[in-house]
Amino acid sequence: MNAISQRLEDLREVMQREHLAAFIFPSTDPHQGEYVPDHWKGREFISGFNGSAGTAVVTMHSAALWTDSRYFLAAEEQLRGTGFQLMKLKMEGTPTIAEWINAQCALHHAPTTEVGIDGWCSSASAVKELIGELRKEGGLTLRTNLDPLQQIWTGRPAIPLHPVEQHPLQYAGESCREKLARIRQALHQRHADGMLMAALDDIAWTLNLRGTDVHCTPVFVAYLLISSATATLYINNVKLTPEVISYLKAEGVGVDAYENVVRGLKDYFESNILLDPDEVNYALYQVAKSKEKGDWRTGVSCKVVEEESPVKRMKTVKNATEIAGLRSAMLKDGIAMVQFLKWLDETIASIANSDSSLGHGVDGASVSELSVSEKLASLRAAQPLFRSLSFDTIAGYGPHAAIVHYEATPETDAVLQPHGLLLLDCGAQYLDGTTDITRTIAMGPLTDEEKSVYTLVLKGHIQVELCCFPSGASGTQLDILARQAMWREGMNYLHGTGHGVGSYLSVHEGPHQLRMEWKPAPLVAGMTVTDEPGIYLAGRCGVRIENTLLIVPYKESEFGRFLQFESLTLCPIDKRPIITDMLTAEERQWLNDYHRLVFDRLSPHLSADECEWLSQACAPL
Amino acid sequence: MNAISQRLEDLREVMQREHLAAFIFPSTDPHQGEYVPDHWKGREFISGFNGSAGTAVVTMHSAALWTDSRYFLAAEEQLRGTGFQLMKLKMEGTPTIAEWINAQCALHHAPTTEVGIDGWCSSASAVKELIGELRKEGGLTLRTNLDPLQQIWTGRPAIPLHPVEQHPLQYAGESCREKLARIRQALHQRHADGMLMAALDDIAWTLNLRGTDVHCTPVFVAYLLISSATATLYINNVKLTPEVISYLKAEGVGVDAYENVVRGLKDYFESNILLDPDEVNYALYQVAKSKEKGDWRTGVSCKVVEEESPVKRMKTVKNATEIAGLRSAMLKDGIAMVQFLKWLDETIASIANSDSSLGHGVDGASVSELSVSEKLASLRAAQPLFRSLSFDTIAGYGPHAAIVHYEATPETDAVLQPHGLLLLDCGAQYLDGTTDITRTIAMGPLTDEEKSVYTLVLKGHIQVELCCFPSGASGTQLDILARQAMWREGMNYLHGTGHGVGSYLSVHEGPHQLRMEWKPAPLVAGMTVTDEPGIYLAGRCGVRIENTLLIVPYKESEFGRFLQFESLTLCPIDKRPIITDMLTAEERQWLNDYHRLVFDRLSPHLSADECEWLSQACAPL
Repeated sequence: MNAISQRLEDLREVMQREHLAAFIFPSTDPHQGEYVPDHWKGREFISGFNGSAGTAVVTMHSAALWTDSRYFLAAEEQLRGTGFQLMKLKMEGTPTIAEWINAQCALHHAPTTEVGIDGWCSSASAVKELIGELRKEGGLTLRTNLDPLQQIWTGRPAIPLHPVEQHPLQYAGESCREKLARIRQALHQRHADGMLMAALDDIAWTLNLRGTDVHCTPVFVAYLLISSATATLYINNVKLTPEVISYLKAEGVGVDAYENVVRGLKDYFESNILLDPDEVNYALYQVAKSKEKGDWRTGVSCKVVEEESPVKRMKTVKNATEIAGLRSAMLKDGIAMVQFLKWLDETIASIANSDSSLGHGVDGASVSELSVSEKLASLRAAQPLFRSLSFDTIAGYGPHAAIVHYEATPETDAVLQPHGLLLLDCGAQYLDGTTDITRTIAMGPLTDEEKSVYTLVLKGHIQVELCCFPSGASGTQLDILARQAMWREGMNYLHGTGHGVGSYLSVHEGPHQLRMEWKPAPLVAGMTVTDEPGIYLAGRCGVRIENTLLIVPYKESEFGRFLQFESLTLCPIDKRPIITDMLTAEERQWLNDYHRLVFDRLSPHLSADECEWLSQACAPL
Repeated sequence: MNAISQRLEDLREVMQREHLAAFIFPSTDPHQGEYVPDHWKGREFISGFNGSAGTAVVTMHSAALWTDSRYFLAAEEQLRGTGFQLMKLKMEGTPTIAEWINAQCALHHAPTTEVGIDGWCSSASAVKELIGELRKEGGLTLRTNLDPLQQIWTGRPAIPLHPVEQHPLQYAGESCREKLARIRQALHQRHADGMLMAALDDIAWTLNLRGTDVHCTPVFVAYLLISSATATLYINNVKLTPEVISYLKAEGVGVDAYENVVRGLKDYFESNILLDPDEVNYALYQVAKSKEKGDWRTGVSCKVVEEESPVKRMKTVKNATEIAGLRSAMLKDGIAMVQFLKWLDETIASIANSDSSLGHGVDGASVSELSVSEKLASLRAAQPLFRSLSFDTIAGYGPHAAIVHYEATPETDAVLQPHGLLLLDCGAQYLDGTTDITRTIAMGPLTDEEKSVYTLVLKGHIQVELCCFPSGASGTQLDILARQAMWREGMNYLHGTGHGVGSYLSVHEGPHQLRMEWKPAPLVAGMTVTDEPGIYLAGRCGVRIENTLLIVPYKESEFGRFLQFESLTLCPIDKRPIITDMLTAEERQWLNDYHRLVFDRLSPHLSADECEWLSQACAPL
């Protein structure tokens, strides 16, 4: 019996005892972050699947895992032999979780129709939606006050206790006190006097603090409760130095123990409180709801205002200091990328020139997905203010690049050959900014299909770069620009086209996105957004080209204010795979202009050899 | 005192008696159609504003009318001197109706906080939303069971009693019986056994019947109540011939009096019933809700299923017969348009060649917005199977074209001069199909601005024509293609880019649309959609170019099925205003290909003179 089977057996024992027909493990934690501390990786514990998005569901006789197209191939691999069936989200015929549980219960004549989920680890909106869906399907009910992992997960990692540090004003650009004032003003407009903040990046942004509790994301586990007069940070106080505590006090923020947030919420409640139901977990949401009373018409008000947290949008609009920091971070990242790309070119050339066809260089050395990732990380780490990677590097060679969020392991690690395409999606956390870039690089001769796919992706990328739009347009409206060229060839990608990027914070920042699904958040000047179309041909190749863009003013007219994008990322885009005839004159012009910009910005910081390489890489098409 | 002032005084007397602080008059009727019979034009009666969309609100001391950008200029004109303030929807600073009422009540210390609306003339969803908004704003409440127009509208037109006629299978392509079977199957999938249909075009489509109760739209006033075993048409039976009654009986549809729908709904209710809250009015919705009982878990079910009517989407996907009919209608419409455009060219040339600068031809004749509309209507009327126009022709010359839904009146009627642009948006109802086309035509020399704006609109139009997309994409995703070129020049239009078109039915057919706002309805093969970007420069000029398109298969790949557009409209696009250099090679190619198609399809049906004119109009750019 393998580890997963044992865990399922343990879980089913708990389920039997608790009269549960099924248990649901989302990928989320009490703070609804995309990346979660190990303590809350319950879905990975129970299923073995380690992607950033996925939901595991276990019934008494079966188990299934829902994930999106980024992880189809990876999940298939990881779930093999675990007893978990892969459910591909957004594909025809994939049942919803509620449909599947209901069908399983019917099939096995389940003696109960109660389903479990840990109310602490799902957002209020997700649980409320789930309750509705389960009710529709055979009248299933949901229990939210049980965490079976407490009983079955031996050696469960503790909630991290890493120290918290101040994020200096020279990088943040706005003091905690000023941010709190802006937040209170925004709350007032929403008829609320306070709010409970649970999103770790929102808390870090508000307080100008950073931590290392989450892999690659400089946040710390805490809650922040704001009222009109006070603010309280709920956090394990071993994480705070006396300096940080007195800094917080000076900014008007008190400190209490992490667990005391429940009591804080209960005691606090003398006026309307805003809870973002997408951010606050169901357990805390219920605490607040249970305290609702009175009627605002009578003047005695004590309501939960369920709206999007105003901090989400505030945080995405960068101030001048943050923008300057992002430019600095992008410059350093570009230098490291150029050093890496030059090294890679030379290494692959040496392999190509050797006798061996096994991917060994003239000196017998070989490079692989993992080794190039390490090389790149070491070059980034040498840059000033480097703190960590901003996510685990995705280095996919050949068919591996078709696995959208592929992560090489020693078992899968492919040796690079002097042909085909290497996809490299990577980024770093610098004190002054966060980076996120994808390049797809020719290792040598390419097939016509590889070239054509590469050029289609590049066309899509450039069309987004060229886009102008009225202030307030949504990312959904812009998304097609990245896809129109590939759609004409009957190709597509199922992930979004772009997301916001934080300032020494999360590499994925909302609520705005470029994607096909409706994302109403208006695009405004000062936001960052990535531009990363791709095409993935299973078993053959994958291409993605990504820059991080800044939204900047374009022009004003009788029709209002218009915006455009400016590339923050400074790194050449490989020209070798391009089928030049497929580009329009305007697209060619953009690429040449971009490459001139890259050369002009980076060359003063490079050695003569590096400059020589870059000048070739940036030569006009 | 003018008529509107008198009506407001009468209304306020009723409001005072009924203790109402405000009364709201939407543009809708009990059937939620875009165009309504005169009987329900209460908003026009009370405000004088006759646009197709707008909401009038009257308080004891003030009055205001909300409408969208299509009608800003027209409404300003029509509301002058009425005491109504114009509220421009989607413009910064425009209050919501609830905000405005609340502010007015506060300003004038209104002794009551109750607002009135006629529950028969607003959809259930609109009223429910309004209730929420009013409650938020100062705790206003809503009363829905009063129609003050019954007391103050002397000479109110009766509900029309025009005869209903069968729409033969040779045009409909699917029998009523077959449609009912498909509807029942769709209802079953939505856990409903029956539905109440209130949308007049849905009823006409389902029953293969047509009428003339609504201006330019071949529908008749009725409700249709469908259960698993029966179907009942609620209609004033003077409208039905014995033949139609026996036809209906043969198709499994009974008939009852229009007013009896309330009783029918009450009696019917032995199982789940689907009511589309966007379609069914609040009064009938409440009748159904009051009958809800039981719990589906117990098996005794009697619920209102609130979902989009399945008929909406069914109707938009045309069958082979309807598509053939649309092609035939478009051919006839194209012939009439070519005859008209040739006549217009010659007439304007004669005016240009005359001595007069007053718009008179050599023979002393002049043409105006109204006279060209009449000429065009007479040419369309000469075509086989012509029944009526599909909407009132919009003929706007010069600055009038900037008024998006301008309708010339004898007072505004502009004489055409041999320069500038004439915008002509028009269409017809033929027994075999409905048409909708806009052309903007050069009357002679143009300014650089006119040419540039025309070319930007054409570029947008062509980009939509060229678009390919995955089956199921939404119109929101495609909309930007029509705007990207003009956005780069800081221009825009605030209306949608396209809408469905019926088959001898409504010229505006949903639920799919091309527009910036979120319209999730998936685009699938067999749907019609217009492509009509525009630019409007107030006081200067307006341009719109519209074809009606059919969604057809494009290609299939490992990424699924892809679709494309095919132009159904057959009419040359004026080349004289085009700045050729602004078009891409692909855009030029599209225009030349389209013009070749127009010539090939129309020329066999034209006289030698007409062919000669068309051959010039369709010559390659």
